[in-house]
Amino acid sequence: MAKDRTGLYPGSFDPVTKGHIDIIERAAKMFDVVVTAVAANSAKEPLFTVEERIEMLEEVTSHLENVRVDSFCGLTVEFAQESGAAAIVRGIRALSDFEYEFQMALTNRKLAADIETLFFMPSEEHFATSSSLLKEIAQYGGDLSPFLTPTVAERFGKKMKKT
Amino acid sequence: MAKDRTGLYPGSFDPVTKGHIDIIERAAKMFDVVVTAVAANSAKEPLFTVEERIEMLEEVTSHLENVRVDSFCGLTVEFAQESGAAAIVRGIRALSDFEYEFQMALTNRKLAADIETLFFMPSEEHFATSSSLLKEIAQYGGDLSPFLTPTVAERFGKKMKKT
Amino acid sequence: MAKDRTGLYPGSFDPVTKGHIDIIERAAKMFDVVVTAVAANSAKEPLFTVEERIEMLEEVTSHLENVRVDSFCGLTVEFAQESGAAAIVRGIRALSDFEYEFQMALTNRKLAADIETLFFMPSEEHFATSSSLLKEIAQYGGDLSPFLTPTVAERFGKKMKKT
Amino acid sequence: MAKDRTGLYPGSFDPVTKGHIDIIERAAKMFDVVVTAVAANSAKEPLFTVEERIEMLEEVTSHLENVRVDSFCGLTVEFAQESGAAAIVRGIRALSDFEYEFQMALTNRKLAADIETLFFMPSEEHFATSSSLLKEIAQYGGDLSPFLTPTVAERFGKKMKKT
Amino acid sequence: MAKDRTGLYPGSFDPVTKGHIDIIERAAKMFDVVVTAVAANSAKEPLFTVEERIEMLEEVTSHLENVRVDSFCGLTVEFAQESGAAAIVRGIRALSDFEYEFQMALTNRKLAADIETLFFMPSEEHFATSSSLLKEIAQYGGDLSPFLTPTVAERFGKKMKKT
Amino acid sequence: MAKDRTGLYPGSFDPVTKGHIDIIERAAKMFDVVVTAVAANSAKEPLFTVEERIEMLEEVTSHLENVRVDSFCGLTVEFAQESGAAAIVRGIRALSDFEYEFQMALTNRKLAADIETLFFMPSEEHFATSSSLLKEIAQYGGDLSPFLTPTVAERFGKKMKKT
Repeated sequence: MAKDRTGLYPGSFDPVTKGHIDIIERAAKMFDVVVTAVAANSAKEPLFTVEERIEMLEEVTSHLENVRVDSFCGLTVEFAQESGAAAIVRGIRALSDFEYEFQMALTNRKLAADIETLFFMPSEEHFATSSSLLKEIAQYGGDLSPFLTPTVAERFGKKMKKT
Repeated sequence: MAKDRTGLYPGSFDPVTKGHIDIIERAAKMFDVVVTAVAANSAKEPLFTVEERIEMLEEVTSHLENVRVDSFCGLTVEFAQESGAAAIVRGIRALSDFEYEFQMALTNRKLAADIETLFFMPSEEHFATSSSLLKEIAQYGGDLSPFLTPTVAERFGKKMKKT
Repeated sequence: MAKDRTGLYPGSFDPVTKGHIDIIERAAKMFDVVVTAVAANSAKEPLFTVEERIEMLEEVTSHLENVRVDSFCGLTVEFAQESGAAAIVRGIRALSDFEYEFQMALTNRKLAADIETLFFMPSEEHFATSSSLLKEIAQYGGDLSPFLTPTVAERFGKKMKKT
Repeated sequence: MAKDRTGLYPGSFDPVTKGHIDIIERAAKMFDVVVTAVAANSAKEPLFTVEERIEMLEEVTSHLENVRVDSFCGLTVEFAQESGAAAIVRGIRALSDFEYEFQMALTNRKLAADIETLFFMPSEEHFATSSSLLKEIAQYGGDLSPFLTPTVAERFGKKMKKT
Repeated sequence: MAKDRTGLYPGSFDPVTKGHIDIIERAAKMFDVVVTAVAANSAKEPLFTVEERIEMLEEVTSHLENVRVDSFCGLTVEFAQESGAAAIVRGIRALSDFEYEFQMALTNRKLAADIETLFFMPSEEHFATSSSLLKEIAQYGGDLSPFLTPTVAERFGKKMKKT
Repeated sequence: MAKDRTGLYPGSFDPVTKGHIDIIERAAKMFDVVVTAVAANSAKEPLFTVEERIEMLEEVTSHLENVRVDSFCGLTVEFAQESGAAAIVRGIRALSDFEYEFQMALTNRKLAADIETLFFMPSEEHFATSSSLLKEIAQYGGDLSPFLTPTVAERFGKKMKKT
C-alpha cells in the first residue's frame, strides 16, 4: 500500500518565476502533497510582502490540486518536520546553484538527518532566470514574458516603478 | 489517497559500493518501490557478469523490503517506462558527476518527457568512491572496507587477483 | 572600409549534430567566410570516413552562402594560418566543455599568438548533445530527431546497425 | 565583399584594468568597430563617475583606431541594437565568470535573439584581476602595476585615499 | 639539517569554526610554526571584535604548541613577509572556494613572488560550514555543535541574540 | 628546533613538463627533502620506460639539492609511508584537476590518515600543459619549447616519430 509523502519547496519567491513553477509542477508528480513555502526571512530587503508572495504563489499553482502554499520563519528543516515533509525540494539549473545547494543540503542533514533533499532539474528554457537580471529588465521596461506569468509580470513591473 | 510510485536506479554496479547502497536507502524512503537495475551495456569491459552484479545487489539490499533488483539492455528511459517508474534516481557527489548527470537527464527528457530525473546526495563519507581508484586499491591489496561491504570486498579482491 | 574576416570551425563532426549547425549559423553572421573543417585525426576510431563527414557537412550547410567545408590533418593553428583565418570558432555549452576548450585555446595561443579563439554559446536546446549518448540512442533505435537532421539521422542509424 | 561589423564591449570599468584592455585589443581585430561602453547603472556605488571612466577608457584605447568609447543607461541589448552592434563582447577568465556570463548571455538572447554574445579569453597573465582585491591593494599602498596602466593606477590610488 | 619554516593562516575567524581548527591542526604538522592571524579588515561588519576573535583562536589552539595567534591590518603578503612566513595556508572544501582562493593566490604571487600559497583539504565532515548559514542557525536556536566547539558556540549564540 | 620533513611528488611524468618542474621547485622550498617518484603503473601505455622517465627527471632537477628521484609500484600512500613522507604534493591548475585531485586525496586519506595532501598552484604560464595535446603537437612537428625543456623536447620528438 502506498505511503503518503509530502515534499517541501521553500524559497523567497520574490516574485515566483516560470522556473519555480516548472519545479513545483515536477514535484507535484513525485509527492502526494507539495508545500510551497515562502521563507519569510530569506530575502534581506524583499520587494514583495510575505502576503503578496503567498498570493502570487496561490495564483500560479491553482491548477495543481496537491500543492499547498504556506510561509515560515525559522530553520527550513524545522518547518519541514512540522509540515510532516519527508524531503526538501530544490531546483538546480547551473553549477553555481549546485555548489550553494549542496552546502545547504549538507548543513540541513547535520541539523535533521531524517529530512532528505531532492534535486530537480527545470526545463532548459528556465536555466537563465536570475532575479537580479529580472529587476534590471523590469527597471528598463524590457520584456518579462519569457520569465514571469502575465499577472506576476504586471505586479513586478508596477513594484519596480515605485522603487 | 496516496499514489503508488516507483523509482528506477540504473547503473553498472561493477561492483556495488557503499555509496550506491547509501543512495538506494535514501530512494527507498522516497518511493513505494525502487527498482535497482544493472544496465547490461553500461560498462565496456565489466569485471563482473550481469548475474554476479545482480547477486551482489540482492545481497546488499536484502534489508530493504521495497527494493527490487533487475537488469536491462537498451535505453534507460524505455526500461523506466516498462517498469512503470515515475523517475530515474541518480546520486551526485561532485561537480564532475553533476555535469555528466545533467547531460544524461536532459537527453533522457528529450527521449521521454514523462520520466523525471531525481538527484540524491549521498552521505559525505561516500564522496570519494571512484571505481578506477577502487581497482587500483584492490590490485595492491589495500583496505577496501571504507568503500565496499565485506562480501563485495571479498569478491572484488578475488576478481582483481585473477585479472 | 570593412575588412574581410575568415573564421575556422574545426571538429571531428562524426557526425555533424544540430548543435554544430547552430554554431555554424551563428559564426556565419560574425565572419565573412566560415571554413568548417573535419580534423581528420581528431576521432580515434571514427564512425564515418572523412569523405562522408564532409558530405554531411556540405548538406547541412548548403543554405549558408559564406560557409565552406574542408578537412585537414595536422595542427589546427597551422591549418588556420593556411586558411587565412583570423580566429578559431568553438561552441561551449557546459562547464566541462569550458575547461577543455580553455586548455586548447591557451595551448593554441602558445603555438600561434595571432590566431584568436572565439567562443559561441549554442541555443539551450542543444546543451545536451553528447556523441557517446547519441551512439547509445541509435544502437537501441531511440528517436534521434532532437539531435540530428533527418538525413544525418538516417545515415547514422544505418552505420550503427552495421557495427 | 566584406560586411561592416560592430562589437559592443559593455562594462562598469571602475576602473579599466589591463585585463579589459587585453579584451578590447582582441575584439578590435575581430570587428570593424568596437564600442566600449560604460554601463552607467552597472556598479552600485561606483568609485569613478561615468565621465572619469570614459576619460580613462579613451586614454587606454587611444592606440586603437577602430575603438570608440561611449556610455549607456538601460538594457545592454537595447544599446547594442541602437549602436548597430552585431554582438556583445565578453571576456571569460575563470569558471565563476563563465557561469555568470552564460546566464547573462542566455537572458540577453531571450530579450533580443539577433544579438550574439562572443566570448574572448584574455592573456593568462590577466586571469587574476579582481576589482575587490584591487581596492584592498590600493588601500594599503600595494603595487598596482601588474593590474593597471600607470595613469589609471595613479587616479585609482588617489581615489582610494580619499575614501 | 632541517630548516625552520613558518606558515601563515590568515582569515576573518568571525568566529573560528571546527573547519578552521581542522586546517590549523593539519598545518601544524607541516610547519615548524603556524601563525594564525585575524585579518582585521577582512570582515565588513564583524560580529566579534578582533580581541574576541584572538581570544577564541587562542582557546581552540591551546593544545597545539607550535601555533601562535596574531592579528594584522593591511596586505596579507606583507604580513607574511614581516612574520617570516614561507607560505600562506588556505583550506579548500569546495569548488567555489577553489575559484576565489586561486584568484587570491595568483594576485598575492604578483605582489610577492617569494610567498607560496599552500592549499589543504579539511576533513569531509567540515565541507558544509558556511558562516552565513551558521548565523541563520544561531538566530533560530538550532544546534551549532556540528560546526563550533562548545565555548565558541556559546559566545556565538549570545552574540546573535543581541543583534 | 626544526623538524625534518619529506614531501612525495608522485606522477607518471611521461614525460616531465615545465609545469611539473615548476611544482618540484615550489615543493623544494617547503620541504627538507622532496622525493619525485615515477608511479610505474600510472600510465596505461607509457611512451617512455620507467628508466627513461627517471633519467629525464634527474636531468631537470639536477639544480635542486634536496630533490631525489625514485619510482614505485603500488599504492601511493604506502610508498609515502615507506619514504617517510609527511605529505603528498600535487599541482592544481584548473578545475578539472581540482575534482580529480580531491577525489584522490579523500581516498588516500581513508587509506592512510597520517599522510596529508598539499596542493600547489603552478605559475599561470603552465596552466595549459595537457599531455594529450603535447602528443598531438609533437606528432605534427609543432613547437614544444613552451612546454618542455630542450632535452626532454628532443627525446619526446624522437619518440613520437617512432610511434
